[in-house]
Amino acid sequence: MSQDFQTWMKHTQHTCEQALDELIPGTDATPQQLHEAMRYTALDGGKRVRPLLVYAAGQLFDAPPELLKRAAAAVEMIHVYSLVHDDMPCMDDDDLRRGKPTVHIRYNEATALLVGDALQAQAFITLSEGPGDAANKLAMVKVLAQASGSLGMCGGQAIDLASVGLALSREQLEQMHRLKTGALLRASVMLGAICGKLPDATETEALHAYAGAIGLAFQVVDDILDATADSATLGKTAGKDAADNKPTYVSLLGLDASRQLAGQLCRDAHKALLPFGEKAHYLHDLADLIVQRQA
Amino acid sequence: MSQDFQTWMKHTQHTCEQALDELIPGTDATPQQLHEAMRYTALDGGKRVRPLLVYAAGQLFDAPPELLKRAAAAVEMIHVYSLVHDDMPCMDDDDLRRGKPTVHIRYNEATALLVGDALQAQAFITLSEGPGDAANKLAMVKVLAQASGSLGMCGGQAIDLASVGLALSREQLEQMHRLKTGALLRASVMLGAICGKLPDATETEALHAYAGAIGLAFQVVDDILDATADSATLGKTAGKDAADNKPTYVSLLGLDASRQLAGQLCRDAHKALLPFGEKAHYLHDLADLIVQRQA
Repeated sequence: MSQDFQTWMKHTQHTCEQALDELIPGTDATPQQLHEAMRYTALDGGKRVRPLLVYAAGQLFDAPPELLKRAAAAVEMIHVYSLVHDDMPCMDDDDLRRGKPTVHIRYNEATALLVGDALQAQAFITLSEGPGDAANKLAMVKVLAQASGSLGMCGGQAIDLASVGLALSREQLEQMHRLKTGALLRASVMLGAICGKLPDATETEALHAYAGAIGLAFQVVDDILDATADSATLGKTAGKDAADNKPTYVSLLGLDASRQLAGQLCRDAHKALLPFGEKAHYLHDLADLIVQRQA
Repeated sequence: MSQDFQTWMKHTQHTCEQALDELIPGTDATPQQLHEAMRYTALDGGKRVRPLLVYAAGQLFDAPPELLKRAAAAVEMIHVYSLVHDDMPCMDDDDLRRGKPTVHIRYNEATALLVGDALQAQAFITLSEGPGDAANKLAMVKVLAQASGSLGMCGGQAIDLASVGLALSREQLEQMHRLKTGALLRASVMLGAICGKLPDATETEALHAYAGAIGLAFQVVDDILDATADSATLGKTAGKDAADNKPTYVSLLGLDASRQLAGQLCRDAHKALLPFGEKAHYLHDLADLIVQRQA
């Protein structure tokens, strides 16, 4: 990864943090505790992988920064809400997230439930306000809502819950992750593109191929890290998948084959970007980042 | 209420039931259990007060049925998701809703969480798809998302939770209900109007005044019914507010003054409709229905 990419990444993460700060109601607004909890979980300097994808894809289509800012913040709000709900006792029951106590630990379960619900609504408020063409903004609402719902992220989580203790085939595992994490990563790429223009069929196909490859790679690497890294490095409880008896790429394929698969998916992602030429360099670098990350 | 109104109401409720059936993914779609649970809670022949408001307000502006159908289904999806989450153990912990076991009782807590999350997303999918002008549809997304979020329904629920055991003033109680139930009722009226056209400032003011009055009336009657009706009539646990030590209009004003207040709010609602003349007759009748309902 080039120096240029590192600089761009830090700048974009900072821009996203500022956007979330601006677009989530302040703690002066009633109800103050709810807004405090929403900000506690959203404004924590996360990796912002989805916003980075929004901005990198937006660059391909010369998207204006003001639209990218809202698209990036909206998809991150959806991601953050899903983490808050996922950490609750009735789901993964996790006490630690990004190195901090989870929302239901820091506050209480009811607050965690409402923080997630309100962040989901805030994502659609964010897309529906601000400048930009109504048709493009409506297309973004559609992409993000579909990626979040029962045929996207929520559906993937439901399959995940139903899979605990089951021996899934590789196809079933892929199907679960295509929905659980893949749908929102794909939406991130599409949102960035739509900020510039409504992509045509060929462009959509290339972007979907790229997003599909990095989506699976992301999950394979997640499974590898869960099996090999420690909690301090991850900022969340390590070894949880095995402890919870959840099917993972590592449990299905083993560690070496999982690493090979991640490498292959990364190459697939690069190949999908060929039609876009040099202009796709940040998307290239993001694919490398996703596969090489240590947390 | 006229025979015509009764017929219109039954027809509209039936249309809404069909729309929800059509717009929520079927049990043949993966994940099947999540879709089954979404349909279990949404397709139960509820009163559909919010969809009735959408259709009645839409009539004022000659809104096309195909747009009203989606607006009505979307607001009902938000309402249903809020009930599912509100019934969970960490919130109101209710076992019975509309005479049936609540989702976390019939299925489990994780499913209830995901059903609510997915229904919220489905509401925005519903508004973003289908025919209609993009600017109007985006305006609907904005109205519904704002009404649902931390400055609307979710905010009201957060205030409600924080108010248990506290002696609220009448102003504080009103503020809570303006958000908790009022925001979505107001959104229903605005959504119906926007299906026809974007209302001007005078029309918006009149619709807000109407919706504000029926929103409070709705809550006052809810409190009266909770204190006076039995669980079988309500289809949910009666006397729960007092048992939970929650502030209500009945506990604050007493039963007689609460009934008088409901009557006054109904007259306020009628008065707000005067600029629309005879064309607002279904909105008139709905105000009466809200105040006179027995469950």
